[in-house]
Amino acid sequence: MSGEQSLAPRPHRPKSDKERKIGHRRVGEGGEITYKKIQTTTIMGSIQLGIQHTVGSLASKPRRDLLMMDFWELETISFPPEGSSMTPAHHYSEFKFKIYAPIAFRYFRDLFGIQPDDFMMSMCSAPLRELSNPGASGSIFYLTDDDEFIIKTVQHKEGEFLQKLLPGYYMNLNQNPRTLLPKFFGLYCYQCNSKNVRLVAMNNLLPSYVKMHLKYDLKGSTYKRKANKAERSKSSPTYKDLDFMEHHPNGLFLEAETYSALIKTIQRDCRVLESFKIMDYSLLVGIHNLDLAVKEKQEAAPKARSEGESDYEDAPEADQYMVQEREEQRTTALNRSRSINRQRLVAHSTAMESIQAESEPIDEEDDVPPGGIPARSEKGERLLLFIGIIDILQSYRLRKKLEHTWKSIIHDGDTVSVHRPSFYAQRFQDFMAKTVFKKIPSRKYTPSNIEGNTNTCFY
Amino acid sequence: MSGEQSLAPRPHRPKSDKERKIGHRRVGEGGEITYKKIQTTTIMGSIQLGIQHTVGSLASKPRRDLLMMDFWELETISFPPEGSSMTPAHHYSEFKFKIYAPIAFRYFRDLFGIQPDDFMMSMCSAPLRELSNPGASGSIFYLTDDDEFIIKTVQHKEGEFLQKLLPGYYMNLNQNPRTLLPKFFGLYCYQCNSKNVRLVAMNNLLPSYVKMHLKYDLKGSTYKRKANKAERSKSSPTYKDLDFMEHHPNGLFLEAETYSALIKTIQRDCRVLESFKIMDYSLLVGIHNLDLAVKEKQEAAPKARSEGESDYEDAPEADQYMVQEREEQRTTALNRSRSINRQRLVAHSTAMESIQAESEPIDEEDDVPPGGIPARSEKGERLLLFIGIIDILQSYRLRKKLEHTWKSIIHDGDTVSVHRPSFYAQRFQDFMAKTVFKKIPSRKYTPSNIEGNTNTCFY
Repeated sequence: MSGEQSLAPRPHRPKSDKERKIGHRRVGEGGEITYKKIQTTTIMGSIQLGIQHTVGSLASKPRRDLLMMDFWELETISFPPEGSSMTPAHHYSEFKFKIYAPIAFRYFRDLFGIQPDDFMMSMCSAPLRELSNPGASGSIFYLTDDDEFIIKTVQHKEGEFLQKLLPGYYMNLNQNPRTLLPKFFGLYCYQCNSKNVRLVAMNNLLPSYVKMHLKYDLKGSTYKRKANKAERSKSSPTYKDLDFMEHHPNGLFLEAETYSALIKTIQRDCRVLESFKIMDYSLLVGIHNLDLAVKEKQEAAPKARSEGESDYEDAPEADQYMVQEREEQRTTALNRSRSINRQRLVAHSTAMESIQAESEPIDEEDDVPPGGIPARSEKGERLLLFIGIIDILQSYRLRKKLEHTWKSIIHDGDTVSVHRPSFYAQRFQDFMAKTVFKKIPSRKYTPSNIEGNTNTCFY
Repeated sequence: MSGEQSLAPRPHRPKSDKERKIGHRRVGEGGEITYKKIQTTTIMGSIQLGIQHTVGSLASKPRRDLLMMDFWELETISFPPEGSSMTPAHHYSEFKFKIYAPIAFRYFRDLFGIQPDDFMMSMCSAPLRELSNPGASGSIFYLTDDDEFIIKTVQHKEGEFLQKLLPGYYMNLNQNPRTLLPKFFGLYCYQCNSKNVRLVAMNNLLPSYVKMHLKYDLKGSTYKRKANKAERSKSSPTYKDLDFMEHHPNGLFLEAETYSALIKTIQRDCRVLESFKIMDYSLLVGIHNLDLAVKEKQEAAPKARSEGESDYEDAPEADQYMVQEREEQRTTALNRSRSINRQRLVAHSTAMESIQAESEPIDEEDDVPPGGIPARSEKGERLLLFIGIIDILQSYRLRKKLEHTWKSIIHDGDTVSVHRPSFYAQRFQDFMAKTVFKKIPSRKYTPSNIEGNTNTCFY
């Protein structure tokens, strides 16, 4: 582990320098991106070779019950450039690829309904794309060409923590299949010149072919929970708790059953997170406004958007879970996804599942993208919500230590988002149950701005 | 843990002395039984108080998802003789009762379909009975008055091992609900005068109201696997591998589907046991011969049986899993069980489940006790098999050490039953699949001693 660097507090450097290096990620003078001084294109290509190999070799191992010991397994494959009896020749530097708990993650992929062939196709049939606006952590986010999966670099400690989490993660998936926790599809380590790049493969929570009219990263805290100017100037900013309360003073309205199922799911997820002393996670909420989408469609000729300037330092991690594409691309992607991957998308986009254990076929109306949770705005607009809990891998102790190092001012404990896990969990679920999501009042007491018949007004 | 005694090799003492003390169990001159020098009646009464308390207090804790941390939980309750705000007064010595993983075992009891009220009633509404013929280990076996549950004393190491096993045990129950592994309902420790008596609550594999015409403890080994004279002279001896091969040279015949399901279940169970390096477990097979039972019934007037002499030293552990009662008692028990507990018995007697995930209602013919696996003897007699895997708590290392201490002669590794776990598992399942259980040949090739239509000859 000689390549492992400790995450020390960053020295104060001029802004221009800051922008060029965050964590292990650097942008060179010519714009080329490196991570731990390895070219990102090399990392991308190498991990594709690694994933292709592991998924391929797993196919020959028959399905069997998952065992406790499968969680601790670690497989290492060498990839010499000239190739070997097991690996193809390649034009990257020699590297090793480590696969953590291969059988366990195969089991999880099965649970999530992802076929090995589909996983391999998504991961390896076309080059990965690196997201241009990384989060504050300096993690690199790769997206598969079909927008299905995200591969994110994680710290050594985060990778270790995920490994420890696996038995509990298994238990949660078994008991709480509607969970909103991230879907982990694999944990890998790319090793080159004694440098380690650890990677986790996850679901892409906000499908890029669905336009998110609003996006929120919510923690249930109010301290400093406001998107800054730079973030707000983006074409698709990720807002925070205070912004949400300003935009939706009465919250988002859900049918009574949907509301109860969603809140119950959040409570169960919070209990699991609390039991592992996990904190500082967020609920990512993407809002697709169906009525607005219809209007936008009618308003015709698609205009190219200019991307807002991104501010590395303050961009929330959540921002990475969505790729904002140009209107033209989006349409293409939508058509492709519609035709090929519709069922699959519904199967491993978490939002809709969180309210129904088995995905019901979604109405084939042309303007209703699959997988979102139907909701209403205060004004009665029809919404689709895409939600999930993110950033769960920084364990309590680690996080606390980092926060204490980074933060010079310690604010009133009650509103700072870093606090005891049980307090954090309670505040988080209270905020979601009382401030973010609201039950549509029963017909008797329907306010004028909500349509009368709650049983039929949802598509 | 000052009361913990190490299990050292026993010194050679005269036979009469040997018979009076095995492990921690002693029989006094007046016939009274003690365990670690505590009167067995005191232990029985105290653990009933303890179990009553824990099941009662659990009832007030709402059901929730099982968490990883629940496996490590330990609750301790003090029982002063004068009573306390939480515990009743009693006439035993002051004691503490420790409950291991209370929430986890509640979850398991739920999975096994055991209601809290039923568990409490079985455990606490009538005095426990101590089995008079203990196994070679010196464990004490208590049976609930309704024959539903067994409470067995376990060594410190065995209790620790069960705790470590719990996450894997959970995984197996979730993936392999037909499992033949023991059903663990609770792990407790009775603590008195710095002595610890650890106890595990399990299912009673061989219901006493069903007469077992033959009983086997099978390991897949042939070395010394023959019941000795003393065992054979009992009214209901537990035979071993070599005896089985002599009694059933062509094995026991199962319908093709039943055979496949059973062998598959055994393989899956063996894989779990192997993954935990567990060895030296047995398949307990109880055979109820339906045709013989009809004859016995017709032959009328029930005669009192004289119990065979029991030989402590050589009685296999398996022997404890069944209580042989007098004919009169059996009839009463059968009627009671029939009327009240029929569904429940089917639910947590393992045998039938091992071939069908959901218990189908069993034909209400008067002479067919519920829960057994239908089979045929070589002679075409209709049989019901009651089976389960037993003695899984002595982990590999512990067992090996004990065996090496106890055994003076090390026999050819291939046939001694103490061997590497993977070898043990393979030999075990091979023996069951090839020697013990046989597929009823399809109609074309039906031998004369098997009835023609295999689809209709099974009830």
